[in-house]
Amino acid sequence: MIVTLLTDYGQGDEFVGVCHGVIRTIAPDVPIVDVTHGIPRHGITHGALVMRNALPYLPVGVHVAVVDPQVGTERRAVALRCGDGRALVGPDNGVLSLAWEQAGGVTEAVDISRSPYRLEPVSATFHGRDVFAPVAAQLAAGSSLAEAGDPLDPADLVALTLPVAAIDESSARAHVLIVDRFGNAALNLSHGDLLRIGTTIGSRVEVQAGGRSREATVVQTFADVSSGELLLYEDAWGWIALAVNRGDAAAELGLEPDSEIFLSRAQ
Amino acid sequence: MIVTLLTDYGQGDEFVGVCHGVIRTIAPDVPIVDVTHGIPRHGITHGALVMRNALPYLPVGVHVAVVDPQVGTERRAVALRCGDGRALVGPDNGVLSLAWEQAGGVTEAVDISRSPYRLEPVSATFHGRDVFAPVAAQLAAGSSLAEAGDPLDPADLVALTLPVAAIDESSARAHVLIVDRFGNAALNLSHGDLLRIGTTIGSRVEVQAGGRSREATVVQTFADVSSGELLLYEDAWGWIALAVNRGDAAAELGLEPDSEIFLSRAQ
Amino acid sequence: MIVTLLTDYGQGDEFVGVCHGVIRTIAPDVPIVDVTHGIPRHGITHGALVMRNALPYLPVGVHVAVVDPQVGTERRAVALRCGDGRALVGPDNGVLSLAWEQAGGVTEAVDISRSPYRLEPVSATFHGRDVFAPVAAQLAAGSSLAEAGDPLDPADLVALTLPVAAIDESSARAHVLIVDRFGNAALNLSHGDLLRIGTTIGSRVEVQAGGRSREATVVQTFADVSSGELLLYEDAWGWIALAVNRGDAAAELGLEPDSEIFLSRAQ
Repeated sequence: MIVTLLTDYGQGDEFVGVCHGVIRTIAPDVPIVDVTHGIPRHGITHGALVMRNALPYLPVGVHVAVVDPQVGTERRAVALRCGDGRALVGPDNGVLSLAWEQAGGVTEAVDISRSPYRLEPVSATFHGRDVFAPVAAQLAAGSSLAEAGDPLDPADLVALTLPVAAIDESSARAHVLIVDRFGNAALNLSHGDLLRIGTTIGSRVEVQAGGRSREATVVQTFADVSSGELLLYEDAWGWIALAVNRGDAAAELGLEPDSEIFLSRAQ
Repeated sequence: MIVTLLTDYGQGDEFVGVCHGVIRTIAPDVPIVDVTHGIPRHGITHGALVMRNALPYLPVGVHVAVVDPQVGTERRAVALRCGDGRALVGPDNGVLSLAWEQAGGVTEAVDISRSPYRLEPVSATFHGRDVFAPVAAQLAAGSSLAEAGDPLDPADLVALTLPVAAIDESSARAHVLIVDRFGNAALNLSHGDLLRIGTTIGSRVEVQAGGRSREATVVQTFADVSSGELLLYEDAWGWIALAVNRGDAAAELGLEPDSEIFLSRAQ
Repeated sequence: MIVTLLTDYGQGDEFVGVCHGVIRTIAPDVPIVDVTHGIPRHGITHGALVMRNALPYLPVGVHVAVVDPQVGTERRAVALRCGDGRALVGPDNGVLSLAWEQAGGVTEAVDISRSPYRLEPVSATFHGRDVFAPVAAQLAAGSSLAEAGDPLDPADLVALTLPVAAIDESSARAHVLIVDRFGNAALNLSHGDLLRIGTTIGSRVEVQAGGRSREATVVQTFADVSSGELLLYEDAWGWIALAVNRGDAAAELGLEPDSEIFLSRAQ
């Protein structure tokens, strides 16, 4: 079974490589996919959204997410089985919660803080190496979830709640979910929501954010507008996103995760 | 058969990891080599040059290059077979063209825009995930190129033309091809070109670029000059490159791809 | 046998990908672990420390470290066998020396500068591709060390010496060993050293560095202090490290490798 890794460790240090080493020591032949290690430091919601987005494109396996500002404290470390057979491993701070919604919910959960599979002595700051990687490797190698930790009621797991957009017949008050490295900002809106406010491909939309106001065009892809123009499009994960063709929408409009955006049909 | 990936996706987001997930879902045991994901955004020529440089060091396999500013428009997506047996996959914008020159030319080509192997629905902005990765995985798993898309005349493929240096007996007007992360600037000159202008290892060369003029020494390696000194050397891909020992030549001389450089024997 | 890679090549260029290609060409089925490619350019000591830290978490294999400011000069390239069976490959400039101390010392050494396994022609600047990767791949595929190069007396290898902290009953004059991407600074002190100066979990310590003075708390993990507070903790490799919870200690205190730090019990 495959192991996938998502963290905020970055690529600059040896944290990721050492997790690979731990997995390879326990399960030499298990394939490993690095979903990303570029989650912003401590970005639990960002990590949870990326897990949710990526999961349908990953083989069924053991999926680790480590965004863990409370590492070393009493926060729980958990391993979960989902309805579709996937296993999720990470801290119990919500980073796994949008993924399990995608994966048929949680059917079994264990607390792995004192897992027999952890590496002793467990450091206070690097549970990726000492807890999450070895537990994931053991699960991928065929160990049972029940043996990986102490049973836990799935209802007790920490779950995130995403902000909900307020939508009427001509406007939407939405929020930025994620900003990617190109400055494209995914909003908590779907294509259906754009239709509800009376806009469709080709429509002009007034965008207000951070005290600024600009017009955007609803299009299918970047090249449908000129360089430097603002666009709204359905991104590859099904969110409506705000972008600038060959530019950086987040920088131009001062957007970051949770920024509020007001969209209305342009006159 | 191996799959290699080269993109401008960067390492900060989940784009690369999701492509790995797609490939692993289709072809679980195929090795994947990430040539680089650090091509400058929309740097088609840069990507094409790196593909050309790297190819001789990669096992024969399916080689994907995605630098794709026109994604989602009518630009073609293609898969090619080369004379030496390699398969190339990517947008038809020239990013593959320097590679196929290295690989014995194109013997067979198909348009994969509507490939039966693509993931439906195809997003407008992430063909790496929806078109290129699944087609590459199918080819690596043994599917035939003919079944991956609609036949195409290789003569219709978009090919890049590199700038040509103007060389006389004592000077050369050349161009920067690529600047790497250390600020070393590869020029469209070979070691033979340096000999033609009357210079060899140990020669002093006057370098004019961006209104500035400096002297460089022709050497074999960085440590042959002092810290901070400018040097010309044959880089690891056979280009003549301009560098500063323990410094950043591109920053000091204001060089970027396509910058013109005038080299002449120093008196 | 596994191959692990540690370099200062970064992820932005194709250097790492090409080394993977070379290894996969020679040894298609050998697993490769990228320990890190984020060692600061020419950071021999940094690379050596990371090799030392990571090694216990890597399966026994062929471990390559390339931090090589003298590439192309007469500095030796070496392959070594350690007492615990690991092989080490890299330039003979000390970057391997802290690793072999961890691995039972060097029992056999060869000079691979003219190894029969190298790729001809050997470039002057990219021995990762032309010397270290092919030699490592051959060793991982089962070739003997003796055939990889010319025999060498292990006593002649270049070894690094780490600075030693000066410790009395109430204070320590220590040095920064490594700064990670989060700005956490590992010092040449152990938990036992902190006990010697009369401090333990919960103690307040006065930290002087770069003309500044601040108080830190000795804790087990980041979350034991408030956001923005300075802490001393035993890091995941067993060093005492200086950090700021949700902040960047190195930036705030102007720390870099080799910076001197004076610690004393706060009154």
